[in-house]
Amino acid sequence: MILHDTIVALATPPGAGAIAVIRLSGPDAIAIGASVFRSPKGKDLAKQKSHTLHLGQIADGDKILDEALVSIFKGTNSYSGENTVEISCHGSVYIQQQIIQLLLRKGARMANAGEFTLRAFLNGKLDLSQAEAVADLIASDNEAAHKIAMQQMRGGFSGEIAKLRGELLNFASLIELELDFAEEDVEFADRSQFRDLLGRIEFVLKRLIDSFSVGNVIKNGIPVAIVGEPNTGKSTLLNALLNEERAIVSDIAGTTRDTIEDELVIDGIAFRFIDTAGIRHTEDVVESIGIKKTFEKIDLAQLVIYLADGGSLTADEKFASFATEFGKIKNRFPLKPIIIVINKSDKIDQAEKELLTEHIQTVSANADNRQPTTFLLLSAKEKTGIDELKAKLISFVNTGALRSGETIVTNTRHYDALLKALEEIAKVRYGLQTNLPSDLMAIDIRQALYHFGEITGQVSSDELLGNIFANFCIGK
Amino acid sequence: MILHDTIVALATPPGAGAIAVIRLSGPDAIAIGASVFRSPKGKDLAKQKSHTLHLGQIADGDKILDEALVSIFKGTNSYSGENTVEISCHGSVYIQQQIIQLLLRKGARMANAGEFTLRAFLNGKLDLSQAEAVADLIASDNEAAHKIAMQQMRGGFSGEIAKLRGELLNFASLIELELDFAEEDVEFADRSQFRDLLGRIEFVLKRLIDSFSVGNVIKNGIPVAIVGEPNTGKSTLLNALLNEERAIVSDIAGTTRDTIEDELVIDGIAFRFIDTAGIRHTEDVVESIGIKKTFEKIDLAQLVIYLADGGSLTADEKFASFATEFGKIKNRFPLKPIIIVINKSDKIDQAEKELLTEHIQTVSANADNRQPTTFLLLSAKEKTGIDELKAKLISFVNTGALRSGETIVTNTRHYDALLKALEEIAKVRYGLQTNLPSDLMAIDIRQALYHFGEITGQVSSDELLGNIFANFCIGK
Repeated sequence: MILHDTIVALATPPGAGAIAVIRLSGPDAIAIGASVFRSPKGKDLAKQKSHTLHLGQIADGDKILDEALVSIFKGTNSYSGENTVEISCHGSVYIQQQIIQLLLRKGARMANAGEFTLRAFLNGKLDLSQAEAVADLIASDNEAAHKIAMQQMRGGFSGEIAKLRGELLNFASLIELELDFAEEDVEFADRSQFRDLLGRIEFVLKRLIDSFSVGNVIKNGIPVAIVGEPNTGKSTLLNALLNEERAIVSDIAGTTRDTIEDELVIDGIAFRFIDTAGIRHTEDVVESIGIKKTFEKIDLAQLVIYLADGGSLTADEKFASFATEFGKIKNRFPLKPIIIVINKSDKIDQAEKELLTEHIQTVSANADNRQPTTFLLLSAKEKTGIDELKAKLISFVNTGALRSGETIVTNTRHYDALLKALEEIAKVRYGLQTNLPSDLMAIDIRQALYHFGEITGQVSSDELLGNIFANFCIGK
Repeated sequence: MILHDTIVALATPPGAGAIAVIRLSGPDAIAIGASVFRSPKGKDLAKQKSHTLHLGQIADGDKILDEALVSIFKGTNSYSGENTVEISCHGSVYIQQQIIQLLLRKGARMANAGEFTLRAFLNGKLDLSQAEAVADLIASDNEAAHKIAMQQMRGGFSGEIAKLRGELLNFASLIELELDFAEEDVEFADRSQFRDLLGRIEFVLKRLIDSFSVGNVIKNGIPVAIVGEPNTGKSTLLNALLNEERAIVSDIAGTTRDTIEDELVIDGIAFRFIDTAGIRHTEDVVESIGIKKTFEKIDLAQLVIYLADGGSLTADEKFASFATEFGKIKNRFPLKPIIIVINKSDKIDQAEKELLTEHIQTVSANADNRQPTTFLLLSAKEKTGIDELKAKLISFVNTGALRSGETIVTNTRHYDALLKALEEIAKVRYGLQTNLPSDLMAIDIRQALYHFGEITGQVSSDELLGNIFANFCIGK
């Protein structure tokens, strides 16, 4: 890892805005910043105190590129732990480009993805799992994901791992000490205490490993396929579901609405809706391509909403066709949970509702029931039954860990390391039971410690770091 | 205008990035900022010096929303001329929303578009044309637009207007003084000097008004329609034209590339390419809809590139069809300049080139020539003749004013005010010639002064300010 050069990147989102921030970090950051800065009072930027702000011009020789506000961070008190300069300029894409090009000419080089955070890690400002939490924090788009990322960034997860590692390391030292006195046949490490410790470690590891399923759901959201023929009210239903959240978001102008258009957050869990063409009983070639695509989309979903128009289902013929279509999906995806939603309940009377409910329960009971099929009658137009649908959606997620504030693992790399650590701990326990010689047991303990170290970055390789930080955005 | 409340907005572009900046401005900005800030060292934000940076947490009671860097600007030394706090947080859309919502609950209100700059204007930090230049600067996407906006933001244009206004005001006072001594029939204002002044003012006004045509081109770019049948090499030509610029842009990761895909900047002038379907000799209904659309797009363009495949044009039949098509466009748009570009020159030999050139010159000479038709033979694939095409494109723009560094008017509002001022000055001059009584002449002078004042904002109304700042982005 080369740390003796100075890196530069745009730190704010790409595109035009009121302001943009360009960040320089490295040994020459302040010198490079000072070389392009013109103070109206003739101030020398290099002589200013850390954590101060200075108004002036960014100039390329005689050519003034912009009026900007420049922040100075000296020594280790910056995000990256290096000298840092942040230039807050007018948010024109052209100006951003011109200033970055100027700084490149002055000796900085373009930062790689995540390189500011990588430097923070290498300079000991945060450990690896904290660094990874920074990327998660930026990507977080709901309360649960934000909470977990904040907790991890502030060291909650590292703390838990470090505690286990510390205790295990303590025993490892004692056991390795025994090796030095091998001919004397002493036991420095109390075997029964060690067994207790292994038990505790296994308990925590299993809990962390289990938390990954909910962590994964929180981080990535739950894909929900909505299957339904045209005119069953798909978009009205989506609007009714998204309604409240949209109103909140549109309160704050300047934030993108598009990205959450088809995402709904319930109790901090994101549901992402995948629209499908719906299936139809047909021999038509074009139609059957549509069906193939629908099947592909259902395959990507963890949950299916099967939508039908209650108003038309009361006709026997229509119901038969509905039952056939539903059967096709249920048979093809026996392990996919399905919610049958009958929309337009406002168009049918009580007797019809009861009859329809009975019919659907029969259809659903006759189907493969390895995964639950639930059923709901609602009116998207009149917004009745929407809360019940939300409750049904959230009931598919185990949110216990989320509510109790326990550490939740969201990162596949951490998950893998935890699984491997658990495997090694199981070997150690087996060694303990079978009176394995200390030297062999010590190897398994070292291996478990290695996997703990992988999580926090006490053990790391250039390749591992490269992989992790490649997923960051440029400028962080 | 209400200035006693505190406004908040996201100042960086919408979307996720490494960091985002949220700006608070107004009398309570520092108190509101301090109420959500937790310093690790227990610092009170309200007691910190102006132009300093502070690391801490943004918290809503016990709930920590983010770790952030907070900038403090006190009194009039801020952008808006008011107490200002800038929160530089992690660039997650969720965190941006949460922090803004928190600040709204703490008593700030959502800023209107351009309201920070409006406050800067109302607080005397910049005049109206300078404030308008801020929006132009942010929108600037090429060197010329950037240069003009910078010049205007730094007061170049205002200075020129203020100078004329000052001299005219001086004469106006003298003439109005004459009114006070009307019975004595004195002339305080030297009529011949006044005539000179009016001449000078007219000269400057006309120059500024003339500059608007190039200013408009610089600000909005020149729309160029490319007409050509499929396989004439349209996209190869576009790529060859855009090649160099694309390479520069892709050097700087993190900036959007899409927005300039079909825009080419030559000598600081942006050309925006409008792709058309091309026309074809046909009786087909669907085809003729295509032709209609092509005509609509040509209508929007200021310049037409008529592209043909040199390789196939050597066949007599093909050339006849080309001549017919070209004739259609030329007859329909007699006042639109056209560049005939014969591509794939690499596929024909010297003799064929000469023959083709002769044919095309005949066709073009026979057409309506109220606007020039020029002709170019090139190979987009082998990149020969591309520079010649660029030179032809730029030759349609008068870039004289741009090169000489004169003030260029880009704003329609300023253009209108300048036209009205010129009209009033002409009236004053006529009054002077016809010995109009001082009191009537004074009215015309006042009117001219009024239009000058409109530009810089010495004369303004809530409605005018509302219209101007509505075009800004939120957060500026």
